[in-house]
Amino acid sequence: MSYSFGEIFRVTCFGQSHSKSIGGVIEGIPAGIRLDTDETARFMSRRAPGRNQASTSRSEPDTPVILSGLNGNNVTSGSPLAFEIANTDVRSADYGERLSVPRPMHADYPAFARWGDSFDFRGGGQFSGRMTAVMCFAGGVARQLLSSQGITVGAHAASIFGIHDLPFDPCAESREKLLLPEKNEYPVIDECACRKMLAAIEKARAEGDSVGGTVECAAIGLPVGIGEPLYDSVESRISQLLFSIPAVKGVGFGAGFAAAEMRGSAHNDPFFVENGRIMTLKNDHGGILGGLTTGMPLIFSVSVKPTPSIAKIQDSVDMREMKNTRLEIKGRHDPCIVMRAVPCVISACACALADLMLIHGGYEWN
Amino acid sequence: MSYSFGEIFRVTCFGQSHSKSIGGVIEGIPAGIRLDTDETARFMSRRAPGRNQASTSRSEPDTPVILSGLNGNNVTSGSPLAFEIANTDVRSADYGERLSVPRPMHADYPAFARWGDSFDFRGGGQFSGRMTAVMCFAGGVARQLLSSQGITVGAHAASIFGIHDLPFDPCAESREKLLLPEKNEYPVIDECACRKMLAAIEKARAEGDSVGGTVECAAIGLPVGIGEPLYDSVESRISQLLFSIPAVKGVGFGAGFAAAEMRGSAHNDPFFVENGRIMTLKNDHGGILGGLTTGMPLIFSVSVKPTPSIAKIQDSVDMREMKNTRLEIKGRHDPCIVMRAVPCVISACACALADLMLIHGGYEWN
Amino acid sequence: MSYSFGEIFRVTCFGQSHSKSIGGVIEGIPAGIRLDTDETARFMSRRAPGRNQASTSRSEPDTPVILSGLNGNNVTSGSPLAFEIANTDVRSADYGERLSVPRPMHADYPAFARWGDSFDFRGGGQFSGRMTAVMCFAGGVARQLLSSQGITVGAHAASIFGIHDLPFDPCAESREKLLLPEKNEYPVIDECACRKMLAAIEKARAEGDSVGGTVECAAIGLPVGIGEPLYDSVESRISQLLFSIPAVKGVGFGAGFAAAEMRGSAHNDPFFVENGRIMTLKNDHGGILGGLTTGMPLIFSVSVKPTPSIAKIQDSVDMREMKNTRLEIKGRHDPCIVMRAVPCVISACACALADLMLIHGGYEWN
Amino acid sequence: MSYSFGEIFRVTCFGQSHSKSIGGVIEGIPAGIRLDTDETARFMSRRAPGRNQASTSRSEPDTPVILSGLNGNNVTSGSPLAFEIANTDVRSADYGERLSVPRPMHADYPAFARWGDSFDFRGGGQFSGRMTAVMCFAGGVARQLLSSQGITVGAHAASIFGIHDLPFDPCAESREKLLLPEKNEYPVIDECACRKMLAAIEKARAEGDSVGGTVECAAIGLPVGIGEPLYDSVESRISQLLFSIPAVKGVGFGAGFAAAEMRGSAHNDPFFVENGRIMTLKNDHGGILGGLTTGMPLIFSVSVKPTPSIAKIQDSVDMREMKNTRLEIKGRHDPCIVMRAVPCVISACACALADLMLIHGGYEWN
Repeated sequence: MSYSFGEIFRVTCFGQSHSKSIGGVIEGIPAGIRLDTDETARFMSRRAPGRNQASTSRSEPDTPVILSGLNGNNVTSGSPLAFEIANTDVRSADYGERLSVPRPMHADYPAFARWGDSFDFRGGGQFSGRMTAVMCFAGGVARQLLSSQGITVGAHAASIFGIHDLPFDPCAESREKLLLPEKNEYPVIDECACRKMLAAIEKARAEGDSVGGTVECAAIGLPVGIGEPLYDSVESRISQLLFSIPAVKGVGFGAGFAAAEMRGSAHNDPFFVENGRIMTLKNDHGGILGGLTTGMPLIFSVSVKPTPSIAKIQDSVDMREMKNTRLEIKGRHDPCIVMRAVPCVISACACALADLMLIHGGYEWN
Repeated sequence: MSYSFGEIFRVTCFGQSHSKSIGGVIEGIPAGIRLDTDETARFMSRRAPGRNQASTSRSEPDTPVILSGLNGNNVTSGSPLAFEIANTDVRSADYGERLSVPRPMHADYPAFARWGDSFDFRGGGQFSGRMTAVMCFAGGVARQLLSSQGITVGAHAASIFGIHDLPFDPCAESREKLLLPEKNEYPVIDECACRKMLAAIEKARAEGDSVGGTVECAAIGLPVGIGEPLYDSVESRISQLLFSIPAVKGVGFGAGFAAAEMRGSAHNDPFFVENGRIMTLKNDHGGILGGLTTGMPLIFSVSVKPTPSIAKIQDSVDMREMKNTRLEIKGRHDPCIVMRAVPCVISACACALADLMLIHGGYEWN
Repeated sequence: MSYSFGEIFRVTCFGQSHSKSIGGVIEGIPAGIRLDTDETARFMSRRAPGRNQASTSRSEPDTPVILSGLNGNNVTSGSPLAFEIANTDVRSADYGERLSVPRPMHADYPAFARWGDSFDFRGGGQFSGRMTAVMCFAGGVARQLLSSQGITVGAHAASIFGIHDLPFDPCAESREKLLLPEKNEYPVIDECACRKMLAAIEKARAEGDSVGGTVECAAIGLPVGIGEPLYDSVESRISQLLFSIPAVKGVGFGAGFAAAEMRGSAHNDPFFVENGRIMTLKNDHGGILGGLTTGMPLIFSVSVKPTPSIAKIQDSVDMREMKNTRLEIKGRHDPCIVMRAVPCVISACACALADLMLIHGGYEWN
Repeated sequence: MSYSFGEIFRVTCFGQSHSKSIGGVIEGIPAGIRLDTDETARFMSRRAPGRNQASTSRSEPDTPVILSGLNGNNVTSGSPLAFEIANTDVRSADYGERLSVPRPMHADYPAFARWGDSFDFRGGGQFSGRMTAVMCFAGGVARQLLSSQGITVGAHAASIFGIHDLPFDPCAESREKLLLPEKNEYPVIDECACRKMLAAIEKARAEGDSVGGTVECAAIGLPVGIGEPLYDSVESRISQLLFSIPAVKGVGFGAGFAAAEMRGSAHNDPFFVENGRIMTLKNDHGGILGGLTTGMPLIFSVSVKPTPSIAKIQDSVDMREMKNTRLEIKGRHDPCIVMRAVPCVISACACALADLMLIHGGYEWN
């Protein structure tokens, strides 16, 4: 179903940009886990708008309120964990408006074609980027589950408008290195690259424009053999969630699109044994073979398109009068959402992995 | 579930490389459709091995036998369409062998870690590329459903080892052009590029090596508003299926990874009205906004890795004795599976779209 | 999944007796429907505790608050309808207690075996009868959907402790008669039977005891052919939901258990044509053949066990010390929940039918 | 989905009465289990027609052929177990016929309303009682899974046309007693009752009529806490499957409909401790509280309607000409299907329990 994902760690989300609240219900969390709500709040704050100079000024505290699922001692009870995040910054004056002129590269046009005037277009309705907050809360919970198994998931802004951060060391398994970008103000490893990225973003903003980029994500500490053959492969599950993030346009696992230009002899990762453990000499397979984890770091990259809301006047149409027109999008908007996409990408990865591990079974979660 | 996909047009597949047969059950096909089984057979033959000089010599007729789902007049009856494809070319001599040395870049290692000696490793078990025949049969059926709505899905080998075919005209909506590669012996638009690709493949084969490439797929004639928000977006559904194809390592919709290096003003596709129809001037959005179709051609590219089975001797490990060893993979193997992947990619797209249209509802199918 | 039901009209619920709130998320409601929230509130009030002399004194206003899913004009927007019902009457003093002595005929014992001290046993946790309020809200919405198609679902307390109400006329199709019990203070057709039932309930209460009964439910106005063969038969879907109501112990469609003592010649319902419509002379099939509706009234009966919480001292065990003990259940409890079960049974039926009609497709909902 | 059931132990079935074959795909069977195919065949033969004097003369060997899912050593491989059962006794002469006159109490009428001439009405299409053979094969596999955990499921014809067999001792846990009916030629405990039942069946047959009855089913050896709250309760899951069996009209767990006439003080089962185990003094709860198993025997009863196909001439309608007519059903038919329903009821119970145990997790299956 469209608003749900996962088989056991199953998340059902609700909300529109201008509804009373947004939120979700997480089924399948093992009972007996003390949830660190400070940690989930901290993780979610990385996605929240209005956080630093690189983002929009709509300011939502984005504090999730837990509605059910914990017992009297803040321990998961075996019943669904429900949460909501209030929509506090909603201007009710929008009320009487009707959607006529779709914003280019937004969902407005197909949503109107689908639902007509029933569609709650205010703020983009259920297509609002704000809906990623729901997956981020679930991702924060999933990260805690994975963490109890020694698994760490991290990500960074690997490039913005062609300016590249240092890559994660593809063979490294250092938890510290992986979480380094999380400790920086911006999720970038290389400070110098970060300054250039911020300059590119600032320049785009000044010119009423926006920029895209890529996010690289890695998970380390995974057991061998997680994932399911065919349609529930690790890649299938992660990509399904990644493509729910509004701006994501592409994903590549391991060598990704570079594999297309390689020969087998160069692309194949040879196995070797070290300290009683089977590993590969390099990691072009990205930690997945046959849809199952190999125990090597799981690595993938994601393409994030430039923010579609730009200050420049754009060509559009009036859908009711069926004629060409021009559109000026008011308000301030993120000139780049790559950095805010980082916790969303982490969450997609963490939710998919937590679910696949629960499907696999046999782990002690508390 | 791992061996099933789709919500209404739901395919459950079965089989291993060396089981009696492989096949599937398709639920949700509307009743009353006269199935053109010649057409499905013809479509499947494009995936079949041993078809031309660019593929392996394992020869399977791959003729699907329909077990149920049609009434006495070959019309779908409203009950599941079940089919099987016999595994005729199975050598039973493999019997006593045990899996010890995993082939690099194959599922052998994680599959053994997961299932141990229960795993039917002969021919790769359920990870065999042969399993894509099941999705191709379903794809052949889905194409017929889509065709009845004026929708055409096509694909071509867009590049092999860096040699590029002409792209589909991203704005064109010509059914003829889209199906052109299907009419050629090889699924390539440009004959000159095709000759160079074949030469590169032949060279790789001669050197005991293999090459990768990309497949570009397009669907035209789609209504506006197909797809579901968030987790059942068109991209989510198509990518889930694409990543069940063993060799796929990446996918990009519309501008894909190129979007990451663009500014919003360049990436945004302006709307305009022509002949009472809303369109975009260019198609960097790839025919999808907010996870829903826009009526513009749906376009995406897929990265296919070089065939992992190569003739060169490779480093591997003995998983039982936990020591390094070397492996020579016997037999003849496809030096390039990009062309055979073309009908698989088409099938992933067609199955996802047929399902999303059935979810959307309101179409007359017969 | 355990806390979700339905395929298209899909309800995911959350909550425990002592959580901040209980509630649910309804996916799949068609867009464009003006929701009558007064009507849903009125319908839910029939289930609410503390309503009349026949029920418990825990008083919850049970007013659902809608969190998302409507546009600015109270019309369904095509995004999930989420709602919560506050748990206002929760005494926090229960905090430090631990579950040791299970109440007979309650879920306490198996729930403790399953989740140990993680289980939020206060008020029965997620097993609380209060959770049926979630299905009643969904049922209220489903009734409005069905009503737009001319379908009415009603139910009454057919018997309490062996005292029988008049049955619904099994062949009648009068909407008025069906809703009659709804208009009475108690959901009973025959006033005289009602007085006897109340007397039996009052006597049980006075003696620290409780009584069971049956609920008969009917739906009229259904089209022919709703339902799916085999595992999604109308009976399968309705019974799945009925058995989520804590006190339900049995269900029979049409002749139900009486069919077991009949001959085919007596049980078979002959078809006839009248006014261009195919009907049956009697309705032992209960409006369902082969799992599909026949257009005749859908009729079933449900057995509701006597309230397990009684004032009498009962034998039980101390699960921690593994020894026999006795238990006195404090507080006031419903001596009979048959009447409060009536809207729950209606809701189970309405939710199942709305979902099956959406699966069937082709209806105009607004 | 209509032709699938189960979450992990997931069965997807296919087939019509006159298709090439019927069969199914079972996902989720743990790898590493040596399947006793003789045992599944023996179990299925109990359902097969033409077996003894109490059944129809259509004779199908009903031998399932396994298509995939085992490795070279007949051990489950972790990939789906697919099987088919040939439809050997299909007369092709039926071909040109069209369905015009629906048989009373069969699915003909609503199926025609649903699918029109697409419906493969020959032999009842997908509504044929023959389709229960698929669930019986799955049930045979599920029984082997349960058996490895010390769980036994059995059933008997508890009554036919009002003639009652001895009940299972509701508190007993004797595996031997439970399987006793399985060892008899007829699934009846009491030989004297059996003779009377056969006489009643024979009398009905002689008079061109049929009789109904009840099946009582029990499962012993269950752990405490199996099942899921609310919509995946043990009762919900079992009843969903029971109502896929064409003739089932009712189900009652534990005291069932008798509970409706009881007081709580009589109905409540008191707990006690014996030999370090918590049990109840009696078993009116039928081994389930709150939808979870209590470790007491799981007991339920099922109402089976009299066979609808009778030799007597019946009133029906011509659906094409919309006029009243009379119908004589040719051929020989089971005058009573209660005994053949016994393995189907066992299978519904076994499949539901196996799935719920796999959902619960933590068991060693091989």
